[in-house]
Amino acid sequence: MDRRSFLKNSALGGTAAAATTLAAPAYAAGHRTLTMVTSWGRGLAGVHDAAQRAADTITAMSDGTLTVDLKAAGELVGAFESFDAVTSGQADMYHAADYYFVGQHPGYAFFTSVPFGMSPQELMNWYYHGGGHDLHTELGEIFGLKSFLAGNTGPQAGGWFAKEITGPEDFQGLKFRMPGLGGQALGNMGASVQNLPGAEVYQALASGAIDGTEWIGPWADEKAGFQEITKFYYTAGMHEPGAGLSLATNLDVFNELSPAHQKIIEIAAGEAHQWNLAQFMNSNGAALQRLQAGGVKVLEFPDSVWDAMGTAAMETMDQYNGDELYDKIRASYNTSMAESSSWISQSEGAYRAQRDRVMGG
Amino acid sequence: MDRRSFLKNSALGGTAAAATTLAAPAYAAGHRTLTMVTSWGRGLAGVHDAAQRAADTITAMSDGTLTVDLKAAGELVGAFESFDAVTSGQADMYHAADYYFVGQHPGYAFFTSVPFGMSPQELMNWYYHGGGHDLHTELGEIFGLKSFLAGNTGPQAGGWFAKEITGPEDFQGLKFRMPGLGGQALGNMGASVQNLPGAEVYQALASGAIDGTEWIGPWADEKAGFQEITKFYYTAGMHEPGAGLSLATNLDVFNELSPAHQKIIEIAAGEAHQWNLAQFMNSNGAALQRLQAGGVKVLEFPDSVWDAMGTAAMETMDQYNGDELYDKIRASYNTSMAESSSWISQSEGAYRAQRDRVMGG
Repeated sequence: MDRRSFLKNSALGGTAAAATTLAAPAYAAGHRTLTMVTSWGRGLAGVHDAAQRAADTITAMSDGTLTVDLKAAGELVGAFESFDAVTSGQADMYHAADYYFVGQHPGYAFFTSVPFGMSPQELMNWYYHGGGHDLHTELGEIFGLKSFLAGNTGPQAGGWFAKEITGPEDFQGLKFRMPGLGGQALGNMGASVQNLPGAEVYQALASGAIDGTEWIGPWADEKAGFQEITKFYYTAGMHEPGAGLSLATNLDVFNELSPAHQKIIEIAAGEAHQWNLAQFMNSNGAALQRLQAGGVKVLEFPDSVWDAMGTAAMETMDQYNGDELYDKIRASYNTSMAESSSWISQSEGAYRAQRDRVMGG
Repeated sequence: MDRRSFLKNSALGGTAAAATTLAAPAYAAGHRTLTMVTSWGRGLAGVHDAAQRAADTITAMSDGTLTVDLKAAGELVGAFESFDAVTSGQADMYHAADYYFVGQHPGYAFFTSVPFGMSPQELMNWYYHGGGHDLHTELGEIFGLKSFLAGNTGPQAGGWFAKEITGPEDFQGLKFRMPGLGGQALGNMGASVQNLPGAEVYQALASGAIDGTEWIGPWADEKAGFQEITKFYYTAGMHEPGAGLSLATNLDVFNELSPAHQKIIEIAAGEAHQWNLAQFMNSNGAALQRLQAGGVKVLEFPDSVWDAMGTAAMETMDQYNGDELYDKIRASYNTSMAESSSWISQSEGAYRAQRDRVMGG
């Protein structure tokens, strides 16, 4: 935690200096361009859109006094180098899925999705009102980042397979693309799991480097073209039931901004989360129908697979126990999820069941 | 539609004048205070919070160049007078539930909630990506308003009753508080329905002016204190499965603002929607447990009541058929809801069922 103490002291020192040496804050007159790197190829459906939405909103609300220059994956740094680019100061902010960075800290998984974890609404409840955002902030301070959720794919599909999955034994030796702790859980089930940036998945599948993949859901998956290669599609999955995307700004850069500019980044990120979640959730139904019409077989995993996934997921989650911050985040997350889930079942769950029954949903 | 044509021409005229007579736009130097009236008593849990969140965010992001001065219900005008106050120019913006204004136009119901209508996620899908926002804009132009969703209560509870509800006949002659088209549907079932602002409901219930009431959900209802008077609480309800709250600005005022200020209002409203929905959804579970511990009996309506509600709701919705804009909004809403609902069931619905089964939810 040396780096963390250093950053905290540094930030405090900076504030004190500004207060004593300047009559007006240094940021008052500033027009500034912030370079945003992302984990997404330019134009990648939904995920790039969320980054662009946040960037454009920041620029527009600040009347251009804070202009965000979006560099897609590969334009400045590679998809998975976005974290290091921002912590090192090479770029000012990134838009990515924080579970790409579980190697930096396993706690990052919770801010995208963990296996058998939160739905998007549960994630929002925790993030805004259950302590999630504060923990995201605490985690970011270790690495010199100020993080906000700024996108959400919704519940992700189980993924694309070359043949039907009849039991957990079908995952033995399967070369499958899946990031984060969900991917580690699949590894515990015997799969040979790879993590690839979205823009590289199609080629890996086409070349046979992987046997199957999950990506996001019907709409984004259709745009990626996986139905051209594999024909068995599983809708529900255990690995990412509501994957948050993050906008993280270099903490020193963030601290130098005016309170108004800081607020603009925070609110633009939050609004992008909602807009993007609605984008995915609005587009998946029609896309799934198109995929089915095109010959894709749409399936659900059998209970035996879900049971094995449950065991593998808990093994994966437990392996990080003992890291103080991980334990703290996990406990907060689980407490909040249990409380949210109970009310969602009693209200929206009961309502939807009656709406379907009465109106023939 | 005369007023609408007038407003459209007026807005165009204003833009043309600015372009020809001013070297720089008139708004460039402006600091401006906007008066916001609301339908909520000051401090009313959740709903007032949403208005305050949007107001504070606008002020902060604009660095005070656009300061929102919030006047709660009764401070400048009464709860239900907020609409007229803004269309007349007495106030600059309102925060309210638009279904309070179905008397102005029945289409307003869709932007709060209609019986057997959308869940909050379905509402967001439609609003952002299914044409909902454009229709809200079209409706607002008739009255000289620029509207955005800026809050959401989540699925509302069926409400508070003095005795257990065993069948639809129990609604005969029942004096019950319920606004919007849901209230009209309850009226079709034989209830004597009243619409009261939130701040007046407790007194009406305590005095016996009404036999029962719905308000929002466990958290807000507990704060309102209804458990002190009635002890039978129904969790799921048909009337407001995801009630949106609106921030509407006088259209002439909005058109005079700079593009940056307009964007700040739009995005602050959107973020307040998400923040507020999470606030309600995060707080209801624990509140319901407290209510139960305090002796409230928590129940669900029997199927016979839901069936009668379904018939009454469709009668209510159909009575406005023939109004061109109402028909257009309803068709758009229903198409979007069907598509959203199908994917939500296949993804989040299937996932939640497995999570509960495997993890013992």
